[in-house]
Amino acid sequence: MDIQTIQAAHERLRGQIIHTPCQQSFTLSKLLGCELFIKFENQQFTASFKERGALNALLQLDAGQRGSGVIAMSAGNHAQAVAYHGARLGIPVTIVMPRTTPNAKVEQTRVHGAEVILFGNQFEEARAHTLALAEQRRLTLLHPFDDEQVMAGQGTVGLEIVDQVRHPDVVVVPVGGGGLISGVATAVKALSPATRVVGVQMQRFDTAVKLFCGESPGHSRLATVAEGIAVKQPGERTMPIIRRNVDAMVTVSEEAVEQAIFVLLEIEKTVAEGAGAAALAAVQSDRTSYAGKRVVVVLSGGNIDMMILSSVLQRGMVRTHRLVRLRVEIPDVPGALADMARVIGSLDSNIIEIHHQRAFGGSSVRATVVELVLQMRGEEQISQVLAGLVAAGYEAVVC
Amino acid sequence: MDIQTIQAAHERLRGQIIHTPCQQSFTLSKLLGCELFIKFENQQFTASFKERGALNALLQLDAGQRGSGVIAMSAGNHAQAVAYHGARLGIPVTIVMPRTTPNAKVEQTRVHGAEVILFGNQFEEARAHTLALAEQRRLTLLHPFDDEQVMAGQGTVGLEIVDQVRHPDVVVVPVGGGGLISGVATAVKALSPATRVVGVQMQRFDTAVKLFCGESPGHSRLATVAEGIAVKQPGERTMPIIRRNVDAMVTVSEEAVEQAIFVLLEIEKTVAEGAGAAALAAVQSDRTSYAGKRVVVVLSGGNIDMMILSSVLQRGMVRTHRLVRLRVEIPDVPGALADMARVIGSLDSNIIEIHHQRAFGGSSVRATVVELVLQMRGEEQISQVLAGLVAAGYEAVVC
Repeated sequence: MDIQTIQAAHERLRGQIIHTPCQQSFTLSKLLGCELFIKFENQQFTASFKERGALNALLQLDAGQRGSGVIAMSAGNHAQAVAYHGARLGIPVTIVMPRTTPNAKVEQTRVHGAEVILFGNQFEEARAHTLALAEQRRLTLLHPFDDEQVMAGQGTVGLEIVDQVRHPDVVVVPVGGGGLISGVATAVKALSPATRVVGVQMQRFDTAVKLFCGESPGHSRLATVAEGIAVKQPGERTMPIIRRNVDAMVTVSEEAVEQAIFVLLEIEKTVAEGAGAAALAAVQSDRTSYAGKRVVVVLSGGNIDMMILSSVLQRGMVRTHRLVRLRVEIPDVPGALADMARVIGSLDSNIIEIHHQRAFGGSSVRATVVELVLQMRGEEQISQVLAGLVAAGYEAVVC
Repeated sequence: MDIQTIQAAHERLRGQIIHTPCQQSFTLSKLLGCELFIKFENQQFTASFKERGALNALLQLDAGQRGSGVIAMSAGNHAQAVAYHGARLGIPVTIVMPRTTPNAKVEQTRVHGAEVILFGNQFEEARAHTLALAEQRRLTLLHPFDDEQVMAGQGTVGLEIVDQVRHPDVVVVPVGGGGLISGVATAVKALSPATRVVGVQMQRFDTAVKLFCGESPGHSRLATVAEGIAVKQPGERTMPIIRRNVDAMVTVSEEAVEQAIFVLLEIEKTVAEGAGAAALAAVQSDRTSYAGKRVVVVLSGGNIDMMILSSVLQRGMVRTHRLVRLRVEIPDVPGALADMARVIGSLDSNIIEIHHQRAFGGSSVRATVVELVLQMRGEEQISQVLAGLVAAGYEAVVC
């Protein structure tokens, strides 16, 4: 794959893919001390960049392949991308997902008319079934990343960035299988050779980083907030391109990604999935490297489970001292809770949750330990409430 | 205020306000059976349309007024709008907020360099203090809505809509004090007379609706998710314009607005505050009226407390049957919980919370009632899990 392949993809996709905005965030630029631009790939119809690669591959099938249809194994953004554009083009689509896939993801794929087959408890089982079905039903397999045309399609993100942000110093890209970054890096290096391209993986799923650095990859069974880039093995085609065109590969922590999702929601009013927030997380985690530079982060997708997002928000409230948990010992008599609540209320803190703990931890059988979750305006108010409780004769600690 | 005033405002604001997109949502169009366009005013720098009116008023101050500075009473979007554009133009800004304003809102205003004065426990106290300060310090008062230039500024939203969506059938606008809708309706009726303009208020704060319908308004002390339009009294200047140019005024429920926030987040990947989601809520609540039409909803702002948003998400999960609470009676012996959990796990449901209740409600002292919060794929899975528990010998009910 070279720049011509990507430019051809760009022509091919024109009008069928959203030319997403790449805008400077002035607030984040100020907070991070750089000129920070965000490429909003979560504004694609199925809310991720995956459409570009999938559509570029679909558009190059011959009439026979189109007629028989395509198959893909994915419970995520690739599935929706293939299903949506397959339906648009009148190409039958079969998608294989592990049996435990959340209903929401199944529905988001079925809604486009794809046949969704739930098979196997694990990735490997589903993959084997996909290959078998492809052969049996004469379906063309669309790989999510290890495919020349898929990489070229994803590379159009890079073309657009170079066009939208003149001579960025760095482009930061999330890396799972490596389809996106191999396309983006090829485009960026061809058109703006001085621009650095940095890839980001999760600490828990860092195979491409390890291979890039010449180290031997481990393998993790841990969960990650960024399941979109939790890929065990990058592609045979993507990895050599990454080695050639990418300047650095880094990892980010789960917490950093959660924080980036929170910041994108609170400041940019936009929804990022974990993988989509990973590039911003990398910049937030290493500000000095990016200080004063023109930095583009690719917000690759916005498909996050609403339950997970809700937890990310609550954990973000805790991290930013807007929620705090206190343990307070009060006498076990009528009116005691009312008095403690009055102290907290008078200091303008809202009580969110309360639990009594009688059997464990109190200093006396005549006392009870109350565990409180309180809403706060920030660290200063936490100190005020603690001081107020102590002044009123209570023992209170953050727990 | 007439269309010329709004056109003049449009020229005046050019380049200083974001020309926000007004895009069709294909998914929501399909779901709602109409052509649904969203005007994304949450993409303004301070995430609401309020900048338009505030800036239009600021730009028309004379040199003396600019030098002395301006004052506004607001804990919300108007405060941020005045603070941001005042700072840009070098005009000193004083903002009065009630003493109980969340720190986040104080900070979001202070960050632009405004002097924030926290005063009074209630709106009325803060308002009286604002008027006193304005006189004492010779500051120009910027009213959030009842001002010709503010209305004209907000009216530019209407100008843009008519330009972006040719001949919409209906434009739906949230209404608090009426500044936005009086501007929008004036612009829309002048440029596209056949387009209907519909105003939306909360059931709990419906003064403008009542006045519009010739009924006497009540007053609510209830809380609302849409505090941005929880205005007790529309303006003396806005109300006659609303009477003249608006076709209908409707109310929406708290639940409908929560659902609209949820849908905008999950489908459109965008953050709406309660007021910002009210227009979509009105369309969702009355689909037949909008069926087959070209409908524009104004997403007026995106400043929602992250704690509230988290609750909206969780309540949305419950409403869409992705979270369910069950009460199950199990024997009070070692291994009983493990067995029940095994049944639930084998049916692919994730346990989110669990509480034992021994003193209340069990049929026997040898039994315990367990209250479970479970993650589900939808209604079908809830039935499967209930059936599975009953088949394994448990009594289980949704509670």
